[in-house]
Amino acid sequence: MTQERAHRPPDPSDPLPELTAEQLATLHTVGEQWRRAAGAPQNWRVALPVDPHVGSYPARHQVHQPRYERFVTVADLGSGPQTTEASQAADMTSSPLGRAGYRARRVLLGPALKSTALVRERMRKLVALPVLSSDALSSVAYGPEAMLTILVIGGVAGLTLSLPLALAIMFMMLAVGLSYRQTIRAYPNGGGSYVVAGDNLGRMPGLLAAGGLIVDYVLTVAVSIAAGIAAITSALPALSGATVPIGLGVIALLLAGNLRGVRQAGVLFAAPTYVFVFCVGAVIVVGLVRAALAGFPPAPPPRIDAVTGVTLFLVMRAFASGATALTGIEAITNAVPVFRPVEWRNARASLTWVILTLLALFGGIMALVLVTGTIPAPGETVLSQLARHSFGTGAMYVLVQASTAAILLLAANTAYNGFPRVLSLLARDHYAPRVFTRMGDRLAYSNGILLLSVAAALIFVFFGGSTTALIPLYAVGVFLAFTLSQTGMVVHWWRSRSRHWRTSLAFNATGAVLCAAVFVTAAIAKFTSGAWVALLAVAAFVLLALRIRVHYDAVGRALRLRPHTVSLPGGNVRVIRRSPVRQTTEPWRPVEMKPVRERAEEETEEGEEETEAEEEETPEEIHHLSVVPVETLDLANIRALAYAASLQQPVLAVHLSPSEEEAERMRRYWTHWGDHLPLEVVVSPYRTIIAPLVNYIEALHEQRPGLTITVILPEVVPARLWHRLLHDRMAFRLRHALHERPKIVVTTVSFHVR
Amino acid sequence: MTQERAHRPPDPSDPLPELTAEQLATLHTVGEQWRRAAGAPQNWRVALPVDPHVGSYPARHQVHQPRYERFVTVADLGSGPQTTEASQAADMTSSPLGRAGYRARRVLLGPALKSTALVRERMRKLVALPVLSSDALSSVAYGPEAMLTILVIGGVAGLTLSLPLALAIMFMMLAVGLSYRQTIRAYPNGGGSYVVAGDNLGRMPGLLAAGGLIVDYVLTVAVSIAAGIAAITSALPALSGATVPIGLGVIALLLAGNLRGVRQAGVLFAAPTYVFVFCVGAVIVVGLVRAALAGFPPAPPPRIDAVTGVTLFLVMRAFASGATALTGIEAITNAVPVFRPVEWRNARASLTWVILTLLALFGGIMALVLVTGTIPAPGETVLSQLARHSFGTGAMYVLVQASTAAILLLAANTAYNGFPRVLSLLARDHYAPRVFTRMGDRLAYSNGILLLSVAAALIFVFFGGSTTALIPLYAVGVFLAFTLSQTGMVVHWWRSRSRHWRTSLAFNATGAVLCAAVFVTAAIAKFTSGAWVALLAVAAFVLLALRIRVHYDAVGRALRLRPHTVSLPGGNVRVIRRSPVRQTTEPWRPVEMKPVRERAEEETEEGEEETEAEEEETPEEIHHLSVVPVETLDLANIRALAYAASLQQPVLAVHLSPSEEEAERMRRYWTHWGDHLPLEVVVSPYRTIIAPLVNYIEALHEQRPGLTITVILPEVVPARLWHRLLHDRMAFRLRHALHERPKIVVTTVSFHVR
Repeated sequence: MTQERAHRPPDPSDPLPELTAEQLATLHTVGEQWRRAAGAPQNWRVALPVDPHVGSYPARHQVHQPRYERFVTVADLGSGPQTTEASQAADMTSSPLGRAGYRARRVLLGPALKSTALVRERMRKLVALPVLSSDALSSVAYGPEAMLTILVIGGVAGLTLSLPLALAIMFMMLAVGLSYRQTIRAYPNGGGSYVVAGDNLGRMPGLLAAGGLIVDYVLTVAVSIAAGIAAITSALPALSGATVPIGLGVIALLLAGNLRGVRQAGVLFAAPTYVFVFCVGAVIVVGLVRAALAGFPPAPPPRIDAVTGVTLFLVMRAFASGATALTGIEAITNAVPVFRPVEWRNARASLTWVILTLLALFGGIMALVLVTGTIPAPGETVLSQLARHSFGTGAMYVLVQASTAAILLLAANTAYNGFPRVLSLLARDHYAPRVFTRMGDRLAYSNGILLLSVAAALIFVFFGGSTTALIPLYAVGVFLAFTLSQTGMVVHWWRSRSRHWRTSLAFNATGAVLCAAVFVTAAIAKFTSGAWVALLAVAAFVLLALRIRVHYDAVGRALRLRPHTVSLPGGNVRVIRRSPVRQTTEPWRPVEMKPVRERAEEETEEGEEETEAEEEETPEEIHHLSVVPVETLDLANIRALAYAASLQQPVLAVHLSPSEEEAERMRRYWTHWGDHLPLEVVVSPYRTIIAPLVNYIEALHEQRPGLTITVILPEVVPARLWHRLLHDRMAFRLRHALHERPKIVVTTVSFHVR
Repeated sequence: MTQERAHRPPDPSDPLPELTAEQLATLHTVGEQWRRAAGAPQNWRVALPVDPHVGSYPARHQVHQPRYERFVTVADLGSGPQTTEASQAADMTSSPLGRAGYRARRVLLGPALKSTALVRERMRKLVALPVLSSDALSSVAYGPEAMLTILVIGGVAGLTLSLPLALAIMFMMLAVGLSYRQTIRAYPNGGGSYVVAGDNLGRMPGLLAAGGLIVDYVLTVAVSIAAGIAAITSALPALSGATVPIGLGVIALLLAGNLRGVRQAGVLFAAPTYVFVFCVGAVIVVGLVRAALAGFPPAPPPRIDAVTGVTLFLVMRAFASGATALTGIEAITNAVPVFRPVEWRNARASLTWVILTLLALFGGIMALVLVTGTIPAPGETVLSQLARHSFGTGAMYVLVQASTAAILLLAANTAYNGFPRVLSLLARDHYAPRVFTRMGDRLAYSNGILLLSVAAALIFVFFGGSTTALIPLYAVGVFLAFTLSQTGMVVHWWRSRSRHWRTSLAFNATGAVLCAAVFVTAAIAKFTSGAWVALLAVAAFVLLALRIRVHYDAVGRALRLRPHTVSLPGGNVRVIRRSPVRQTTEPWRPVEMKPVRERAEEETEEGEEETEAEEEETPEEIHHLSVVPVETLDLANIRALAYAASLQQPVLAVHLSPSEEEAERMRRYWTHWGDHLPLEVVVSPYRTIIAPLVNYIEALHEQRPGLTITVILPEVVPARLWHRLLHDRMAFRLRHALHERPKIVVTTVSFHVR
């Protein structure tokens, strides 16, 4: 795993991998075998009965035929390769369901975006800072409270521990922050825990870190929304019964927004963070100044009864809960490339500011809690109590609560950026189903976004939207990832021995030890109250990821091209020299082309050949064209091509490409293979496959309605049922879409992976 | 609709309908067009690379190969047609799921039965009487109680009406019974309401009668089980909380039993009825004798308060509820052919006996109710009260309750015979989905049995298993069917004017008027308390049946063969005279046949040709065989055959036939068509299709593992989604089953019905 690989810009051209020299050589050998078998170089190439460049077809005659306008010929150079590009209209199939689905997507998500629209947005420090720190800063809204909720069980004696524990957590913040500053320097392309741990510690630590992150992103959404709703219901207690519906509504909003591809930048996202920092700062300053003016009167002893004595276990639990205030601190490290140059310098400066702000807010809140003697109360958050203490229930109080809710919502949104990205990295390394690499029509990783929403909604409903119930699950995953990431950095410095490596190593080692301590503390202290769920989820994730990888490796091996030893003539085997391919249909004649309407009239005069009705036909009257959708040149696809060619009817291979570059690569491979069959590359800039392919085949059908088009689909069939979830069932979906259309025969050539 | 048609023995050979002379002529014309197009008579027939008689294959060499034993050649006459018959082992596909499903079916349902095992069992009168009368006689267990439950609302004044109402109902019994005696004479093959009403009154009355029956069979199951459980809980009040689970358990038992194909005959089924009649008779006699000995002391006035006054409406409701005692009276009329000859005479005698017994039991119970002053009590049935009154709570009381529960269970079982039969008649007339004509591997109409169970279970749970709640829905459907059936008989006599027609007409007219009166009374009086549900269900059924018929008619028209006008040479169309079909594979050579094991060894020596691995192959190396499963010779199937032939590879058509006769018919049509392609008929005596077909194709594959077998499936695609439920999705299921197998390519030739 290299750094570049993990953090290269998301490249939708992944379906067609770059072939190594050896693979290219094999491809060539396989092609040679075809050539030898065929006898003559161009034996399999037959003049097609249709024009494969469906885009150019009507343009020449200016016929208004909206269905053809779904395709545009991009480069009509006469001799050079023509590329048919699917327009946005080609994304809609002509069935009522297809049309309705397309329209619903456009209304909900906005117009589809071309792959080329994917440019990385750079952010100014003043914008990047609030956007990337919302997760970290928002955790002061629940961190102190989570700690106090535990300490209060120990009664007054327990509460006296809040000062030392707060100081310990602040020390943690400083140490972890300094540690991450080192990561930024080493991974200027962004150093997520999965990448850092995987690069330096190996595959299992990488997967464990990824598992921790995955679990934690789900919990970030659930906890942030729960805490945000708590901020609202503190101000409006009447809403407290509707926590779960409100939370589900918020998740639905986040889902829709992120499917649209909400960009992180912009004032809209920066403002709440600044307002929140200002408000909480004001609460702290006003509260402390008031107390100072009153000469720091001793807080009235809280009326609580100790439920248990102050045990080490209680202290551990309180510390682990309070440490949730550290979550989100890694966001800047993951996102170094979004800063303006010099990226790592700007990122590091921003991180310093975030840490300082976090320290100030956390310290201030804890100080105010101690001064005012605030303890957690049912139905009202600690922050709300403090705000009321400082400002009463006026406009300023409302602003505090509103900005708290807003920043928590932003924090949840952070997970919507992180979760699909980690999942897509895992999918690229074959540890997660391939669907997670696919970008939706708004250039967002739609499948990851969907999965996160469903998982977070389930967790949220299961725990009734209670922050207190969710906190024990939280932080375990984060600190597992933190620990592995910092440890990875230690190894990194040890190996690289670059400038200042000793200092950096020392910082990272401190961070690693502290994070490990928190992880172990949290895992032990909160095990029975919920951490076991998180740990189990991480373990399950790692096991699943490994099994997925094993499957993909097996499929990869099975699909790898290998030249086979052609059997010698003799024995039972007879090598048949066949005559050149027959031609049962008139080839497509560009010279005689007429506008569609005229052609249609002529045909009715001429009689039966071009009728669309599915009438009885004798075998003689059936004119064939085989269309083979080719995804890549692996064994399954080559076998489908061989099957198609062996039928000795005109064959047209079609490749759908998300970009012009990928199209070019495919053509190169095709030539390298031997160019045995005509290939048409359709560029689908909106990255969809099914709809443009169906529309392309329909466009061929409309050129020559009398033709029977056999669509030959290669399909990989894994042996186990659950493995089928790991394949995109493209053949199934295409078959279903083509099912409705007249004169189209669908053939599936299965390839079995044992 | 003829009488024979409705009651011919269930004939599993229905999928291939008998063709009319006109259809045969069309078939011949279509075949002639193939011949003319092909140029030479046998042009499409190619020597096959395999032996289609897979059964005979290993038998000749005594090789033990269990997979081949799935097929047996039945008639190997050398020159005559050989028939391959699927053995029971061919019913199991080789996938783990297929094996598990097969085994589960065998454990639950017992061994599969061949179609030839379907012989009609004749019953002696002494056995037929109790078996066919259980439904009718059991209704005295809830009829009187249903009436009293209503009358008691009117207080003492209401109860005084029980005597006249009981007499009215007894008069009804007599009249309806006499009326049905006429039906028996006119319909010696069995005159169900659907048949009689459809024959004489037309399609709508027939459907209404069928709807009434359908709704009523579901309610019979629910009501009988509810009443049976009430009989049990009267004796064992501790069970009264578990009514719904017990009821569902009983439905599950009935489901399993009927899927196994429980035969109605046998002492097991006759005994409970006799015991019940004896017990209830004893209750009546003992009770009345006791009362007589005591000089008929006036019953203590029941302590009840009138809820309402005695209105006409109340009387109507009570009458309609009491009339449920008439349900089941038609069973003998439907089942005339099960009697020994002279059937109608024996049936009529039995009906007389049933009516007399019913009169005696109903009258006796009502008399005892009046004498003892019994009124319905919560938690105990009226019959249970009477039994305790006569016998105390001793062994005799337990016997009464047990036999009541047993006869009610039998009555529910009656519906399991009637419902699927009516549904299969409707399906044969294209008013219900075709799946209901199909017999399961135990020769029972499994799909109808399943539907009845699900519907009855839903109704039972919805009404909490309460007889009182269910009774208002009941009887409406029965009396609708009774009315239409009797009216149909009136028309029948009027038209036929056969011997005694005037008398018969008079009896039937009386019956019709009385039944109509009950129907109207029930529909009005119980409309709001539940009858509207039943009426709505009947109306919905009729509408649905009509829409189903419209669809099937459209499909039938679309699929009808029609010779098309072959276009003349000239214009854009070129008629291609093609060379005789190429032969890319060695044909199958019976002379050189060797035992399978030897062959396998040789092949490994000879090299690649017969390898099973899905390796890369050049088009030259692919050897084809197309297999077309043909269900019948309609347009969809002929188009698939034409498609297969047009590929100019060896084609083998396979037809699965449930019986030898049907196989013969298929061969005749095939010859009539022109015998353009080789046809193999596989007899599947267990009526399954998917598994034997898959196994047959696998057997071909094992003969020649190097061959690529393309299975070409004709598939009818209706335009609307709900219409797809009306088709058996055979193509889908076959595709799914073949998907797993190596070197088998599946092609779907869709036929679209617009």
